[in-house]
Amino acid sequence: MQHEYLARAERIMQRIQQLAAISEDAHGVTRTFGTPAFLAGRALVQRWLQAAGLPTRVDGIGNLRARLESRHPAAKTFVLASHIDTVVNAGKFDGPLGVLMGLDLLENLLAQQVELPFHIELIAFSDEEGVRFHTTYLGSKVVAGSFDTALLARPDAAGVTLAQALTSMGADAAQIPADAIPAADWLGYFEMHIEQGPVLWERNVPVALVTAIAGQQRVELVFRGMAGHAGTVPMAMRQDALCAAAEFVLTAEQFAQTHGRGLVATVGKLAVSHSASNVIPGEVTCSLDLRSPSQAQLADAARALQGFAEGLAAHRAVALTWTLVQQTAPVACDATLNTLLAQAIAESGHEAIPLVSGAGHDAVPVSFVAPATMLFIRCREGISHNPLEDVELPDLAAAVAAADRFIHLLRTQNPTC
Amino acid sequence: MQHEYLARAERIMQRIQQLAAISEDAHGVTRTFGTPAFLAGRALVQRWLQAAGLPTRVDGIGNLRARLESRHPAAKTFVLASHIDTVVNAGKFDGPLGVLMGLDLLENLLAQQVELPFHIELIAFSDEEGVRFHTTYLGSKVVAGSFDTALLARPDAAGVTLAQALTSMGADAAQIPADAIPAADWLGYFEMHIEQGPVLWERNVPVALVTAIAGQQRVELVFRGMAGHAGTVPMAMRQDALCAAAEFVLTAEQFAQTHGRGLVATVGKLAVSHSASNVIPGEVTCSLDLRSPSQAQLADAARALQGFAEGLAAHRAVALTWTLVQQTAPVACDATLNTLLAQAIAESGHEAIPLVSGAGHDAVPVSFVAPATMLFIRCREGISHNPLEDVELPDLAAAVAAADRFIHLLRTQNPTC
Repeated sequence: MQHEYLARAERIMQRIQQLAAISEDAHGVTRTFGTPAFLAGRALVQRWLQAAGLPTRVDGIGNLRARLESRHPAAKTFVLASHIDTVVNAGKFDGPLGVLMGLDLLENLLAQQVELPFHIELIAFSDEEGVRFHTTYLGSKVVAGSFDTALLARPDAAGVTLAQALTSMGADAAQIPADAIPAADWLGYFEMHIEQGPVLWERNVPVALVTAIAGQQRVELVFRGMAGHAGTVPMAMRQDALCAAAEFVLTAEQFAQTHGRGLVATVGKLAVSHSASNVIPGEVTCSLDLRSPSQAQLADAARALQGFAEGLAAHRAVALTWTLVQQTAPVACDATLNTLLAQAIAESGHEAIPLVSGAGHDAVPVSFVAPATMLFIRCREGISHNPLEDVELPDLAAAVAAADRFIHLLRTQNPTC
Repeated sequence: MQHEYLARAERIMQRIQQLAAISEDAHGVTRTFGTPAFLAGRALVQRWLQAAGLPTRVDGIGNLRARLESRHPAAKTFVLASHIDTVVNAGKFDGPLGVLMGLDLLENLLAQQVELPFHIELIAFSDEEGVRFHTTYLGSKVVAGSFDTALLARPDAAGVTLAQALTSMGADAAQIPADAIPAADWLGYFEMHIEQGPVLWERNVPVALVTAIAGQQRVELVFRGMAGHAGTVPMAMRQDALCAAAEFVLTAEQFAQTHGRGLVATVGKLAVSHSASNVIPGEVTCSLDLRSPSQAQLADAARALQGFAEGLAAHRAVALTWTLVQQTAPVACDATLNTLLAQAIAESGHEAIPLVSGAGHDAVPVSFVAPATMLFIRCREGISHNPLEDVELPDLAAAVAAADRFIHLLRTQNPTC
């Protein structure tokens, strides 16, 4: 049995490698939405699905969709999904792993001629990373019925609109409303994905269940002081914008360290305008990325940090602008599905660790219309969005076993749906 | 008398405006070393010198030099000087003011047919800012006899060497050794310059004497932690290079604020490698500019800050490299000249405030071979290296009066030199 899972993991890994070889450039993997590399990658996955005997179609946003139908007249649809677009200079696993594990799972069900009490739809979402149009979850929002058609007019960096990109991909944007799975048809949603963080690596456990996906506030801060000569302005006469920003960086770090589990705060970007080693910084722009599984904690933290930022800026006679750039609410994964998933992990011989996902996933828009959960697979050293992204074969085998078991338990729990 | 100084200040101001109209570009003033704008500006100053009846020459590094000769057989040389090159997008006063005040002073001595006990040489240095060849004090080092001929092979951004630039300017680099004023010939050196800082503006005093020019250490720091996803790496597992750098920024600020008068510390540049709002910074490079009038304080401060930086980096499991990029020793202005200058300022009706110059000046290399001092003139709000750089007419008149008085006192003190 263990041997069988390893063999399946090896096959998944071979497909991961073949798909990763299709890239916009030679270094790392780059298959952003709608590019020739993206289309070639999707075509390869489509050939694999067809070879497995699954009927496939491409929907209005370019998602690749395959269905394994139940014969029950009242069967609902359970979705297995992840995405096949990537960031620039990505790794091989972020996205494709979930799709190719789903394919393997369906191949196994087909080989065993399992009688399904629900339809299974396997979806390879066309755009999760949002690199090209600076969007979030284009593919899964269409399936969840929350796609905003105003986005069709949005241009990419080259001035090509999303609508034009879809046309040139051969997708029919007019189809998009019909591509949503109706609310009544959903049984649930299951996404398998690498963790993209170091917790499983540090704890030496191959898989975890996801209990929630953190909400996020993204803020842009601009500190405006007074530029000056680094030699001629006494310390007491300075309005140093970088010192103000530095104080904020440390305040945000300390706040997140001391305020409850799951809250993380990151200043990822910081730029000094007209910087020179002999000029006192007059203007600094920085970002704040704040995440928490709790909406209340997220809102409290943002409010508190804005207050701290305003206080330290005022104390330094530095002006501050605080601009909320983006926010998403935390979502909880479905408790019933998670009970089954924890059971599946435990029955396949591993500790069932509940994790909060700090990264966003396609499960977010889906969770507003259907019960959703995720299985995390450990990745090497927690590295992701990097060509060094890697998954070890025994971990993948453990994930295959847990996913198989999860679908088995789901079938047992839903004999007549 | 007051009216006469105002009239002279007005004339200097007119020349400042005429010279400032000669620029490499329309916005601000840009006359970097050796450019057509630089040559046109120098030619204008040369015509003014010649019109005043002064013999002029251009030396091997492109300095413009004029002499008012004493008839005493054993007369030494007293140098009045400043520079006529500028930074990019400069103001009108940084450099040219001292040269044109010197011309005015000589015109006045000529008009009064004063019998001089020493020669006065007025020098418009060709390169103080060092913008083109990333150098310091090219012009004054030639006069002080400390020019390093290895610099002749240094290329500018376009690949033109200093030697080639000199040839195309019509200067004869072979002359350079002979252009130094022999040590035995120096009586002293006097440089008039805008303060480039806010102290006189805040204290509402038009001029000051400079007691020392701060020494400087310029350091490049690189903090190397571990990049990671802003959502998925728990706070306790981070090695955030920006948090380490921020801690250093505040440590340097606080150290300078609390460690003695005259010490200033500035982090002017700070760059996050591969920055993104959702990525924990993995590498940050920043600068440290440290200045003090005391060599011991400067060395102690650098040592202490390096220790603090290493400590905080180690505490965060972040690697640090600390690279000394440049250092200059502090120089003291000549006590005897300063006593005269303080007397001259007081006798012309103003408080004689002793200031340390945090900015470097041509007086630095000269101070190693001759007694040197400087007169600072207040500039509007302390702003310099900026098109907004400005000097008010009454302040300029006060400076003219103090400089006149200083030369008068110097003549009285040196009747037979």
